[in-house]
Amino acid sequence: MPVRTPDPDPNDRDDEGVPRDPLGGQGFGPGGQAGRSGRDGRPLGDGTFGSPTPDSAANPGWLTEIELAEIRRRMPILYVEAVPVRTDGVGAVTEVGILLRATPMGEMTRTIVSGRVRYGETVRDALFRHLENDLGPMAFPLLPPQPVPFTVAEYFPMPGVSAFHDDRQHAVSLAYVVPVTGTCQPRQDALEVTWMPPAEAASDALSDEMEGGRGSLIRLALASVGALR
Amino acid sequence: MPVRTPDPDPNDRDDEGVPRDPLGGQGFGPGGQAGRSGRDGRPLGDGTFGSPTPDSAANPGWLTEIELAEIRRRMPILYVEAVPVRTDGVGAVTEVGILLRATPMGEMTRTIVSGRVRYGETVRDALFRHLENDLGPMAFPLLPPQPVPFTVAEYFPMPGVSAFHDDRQHAVSLAYVVPVTGTCQPRQDALEVTWMPPAEAASDALSDEMEGGRGSLIRLALASVGALR
Amino acid sequence: MPVRTPDPDPNDRDDEGVPRDPLGGQGFGPGGQAGRSGRDGRPLGDGTFGSPTPDSAANPGWLTEIELAEIRRRMPILYVEAVPVRTDGVGAVTEVGILLRATPMGEMTRTIVSGRVRYGETVRDALFRHLENDLGPMAFPLLPPQPVPFTVAEYFPMPGVSAFHDDRQHAVSLAYVVPVTGTCQPRQDALEVTWMPPAEAASDALSDEMEGGRGSLIRLALASVGALR
Amino acid sequence: MPVRTPDPDPNDRDDEGVPRDPLGGQGFGPGGQAGRSGRDGRPLGDGTFGSPTPDSAANPGWLTEIELAEIRRRMPILYVEAVPVRTDGVGAVTEVGILLRATPMGEMTRTIVSGRVRYGETVRDALFRHLENDLGPMAFPLLPPQPVPFTVAEYFPMPGVSAFHDDRQHAVSLAYVVPVTGTCQPRQDALEVTWMPPAEAASDALSDEMEGGRGSLIRLALASVGALR
Repeated sequence: MPVRTPDPDPNDRDDEGVPRDPLGGQGFGPGGQAGRSGRDGRPLGDGTFGSPTPDSAANPGWLTEIELAEIRRRMPILYVEAVPVRTDGVGAVTEVGILLRATPMGEMTRTIVSGRVRYGETVRDALFRHLENDLGPMAFPLLPPQPVPFTVAEYFPMPGVSAFHDDRQHAVSLAYVVPVTGTCQPRQDALEVTWMPPAEAASDALSDEMEGGRGSLIRLALASVGALR
Repeated sequence: MPVRTPDPDPNDRDDEGVPRDPLGGQGFGPGGQAGRSGRDGRPLGDGTFGSPTPDSAANPGWLTEIELAEIRRRMPILYVEAVPVRTDGVGAVTEVGILLRATPMGEMTRTIVSGRVRYGETVRDALFRHLENDLGPMAFPLLPPQPVPFTVAEYFPMPGVSAFHDDRQHAVSLAYVVPVTGTCQPRQDALEVTWMPPAEAASDALSDEMEGGRGSLIRLALASVGALR
Repeated sequence: MPVRTPDPDPNDRDDEGVPRDPLGGQGFGPGGQAGRSGRDGRPLGDGTFGSPTPDSAANPGWLTEIELAEIRRRMPILYVEAVPVRTDGVGAVTEVGILLRATPMGEMTRTIVSGRVRYGETVRDALFRHLENDLGPMAFPLLPPQPVPFTVAEYFPMPGVSAFHDDRQHAVSLAYVVPVTGTCQPRQDALEVTWMPPAEAASDALSDEMEGGRGSLIRLALASVGALR
Repeated sequence: MPVRTPDPDPNDRDDEGVPRDPLGGQGFGPGGQAGRSGRDGRPLGDGTFGSPTPDSAANPGWLTEIELAEIRRRMPILYVEAVPVRTDGVGAVTEVGILLRATPMGEMTRTIVSGRVRYGETVRDALFRHLENDLGPMAFPLLPPQPVPFTVAEYFPMPGVSAFHDDRQHAVSLAYVVPVTGTCQPRQDALEVTWMPPAEAASDALSDEMEGGRGSLIRLALASVGALR
């Protein structure tokens, strides 16, 4: 088992997004690590049972990068995803928020809010944590009272098994539509949030810019709110 | 908040609630008709196509009491219902709002937000209108982006056909859980809103105070948000 | 109030499909009536409370064509719709059934199973009745145990209010995906059922052949079963 | 009942049920393994990517008991659960199937169909596999076309975090209502399936016999099909 770095949290960085650039999750250097520390001020494995110290001895839910990579090849990994929306006064969806993210290679891709559920963390807390990470602390997301997602997206390492694909892992994602009422200030590698009308969000053009089948996921999200034509 | 006209509005009054006291919907006199003007400041049959004039000749969606009573014996009538809830910071339901209403006979009954969908009105607009009528203009309800209700409640004039019963009519109700964020000031015959934890809202004691099978409806609502034990 | 025709049931014919050709629902002559009589051998207003005699005196739920046309201009009318599907051994949708229907003018249009809910009839019974009418008695549809539709489709007489349009009426439709396991033998004016893969059912080409926004409804149905890309 | 393969599969035994008797899942010796061999004759990690050889070198998805126990203390584990039901001709639920299971200590407990999703396996395949394991090959379950569960049940090792509890692990379960049309012949440690009406399945008496909060899960299942009063 490798030595832990005392401060930054590789999981915290790594549990964002399905799929990621193969180099993105693993290949970051020291400068990157420094910037990544305490992304949300909370160490990995917090939530319900987490120790406040990012110490794997104290907190078994805390995983090294190597351990996480290992488990990813042997177990389905639970994710949550969120499609941020703006709604009008009676709750109808008027706009969809799409994230623009830069990969470590400098490529730009479009994506949505996405991340892993940690050991001991509720699905609801994980969803809130990733919304805050990706949209900033002033987004004021309104999480739905229902625990049921609009779809269960299954990402497989081999393309073609389902509509969704992630070459790193087998991930099963609970996907939600989440109205946000505040101002989005994307943090870290999410460069900006682009708001667009449902028709544009459902377009083939946008879909082509999204990885892993997320274009389909946006359409399922729009269908669930009756905003797909 | 507009000043109330003392004269009740037969349709506006009458389209509230399934079921109502048999005398309640019908038992007001001619003076009542004259005052039809807008419980919520809007004439009946407004919504999308409504004429601004509360005139049945100009607006075919406007129904006299007699016409409505007639149709109720011949067609299923579309309703919307809402279970108001309070949620915590991550969307979990913490409290349920139950209305206390006085019948014209002076009896007190417990109920939820409920009312008819008008001709030309969207389900969403009808839901908002009835929430405003029953909870007041400062309740700030957050209507869900999804058009799908948590259940479809079918009220039949004869008891026993389903869990729901309304001796006036065959009503089919789309029922929603709606978080409210503001202050409730019940209007008209809804005397007050009582907030209670989910366990109390699901109790047999409360269920016994509710008419038409609404106690079951509350339980289905709580189940849909994972708050029923 | 007009004299009732003793035998044929105009409602039974008329309550099929949203929307219909404007001439189709109203304009049929005696020959048409004879051919249409007893489409399913059951008079209107059967179901729970219905008298077996198609006699409006005995059964207030039975409506003349004129009465129904009148109510359609004044009240939202409750419909059920079904998208028939074939599934594989583990429940995944493999094919979608689209109806080909001839209008009275001889035009061919594509549609799905659709019809009105009668007074006293449960939504479930209405759904089964229309499936049997449109797919024949050997289709063996498997109605879902859940009462909740995949969407609530709102058809307005004026285009543009929602994705759905019906120039005859304001109809609110509860739409379901229904696996069918038997052989479809469309009855009456539904000429045939065409089975096609989800991608074809979701195509613009098919959507263009469907009236009233039903192409969108098919897509929402496919999205609800995770079969839309 | 098929002949058992001699090669024991600890995971195959172990991935059944949330929660299990603490001694049952972990504490078995060699004799225990022999008896538990190959519950369904298929090695762990089959499904989409699985090697047919239960060899962890060849198939990284195959886990030793120790490895699985280790991962269970560090990651949320994805489960599927099913409430088997009987339905009438129009799809309404008439009966609920509850499993009677003997723990290794000889105690009898009531439970439902439940088990882990394997690496590379779809949720749908996992659901089918566990239904077949627990109800036998002649149950003919009708898996729903929708991927969305009726609830997401979160089992935590510490009681009180949610309605659900499993002292072995943090498990997140996608729970479905599944109509079964054939004959149930429970296999292995599931001794029998008891069919009961919804009211009995929702009773406190039954709930008290179920572990980990499964009594609540049954009620949520019944609510989702409109069969809870």
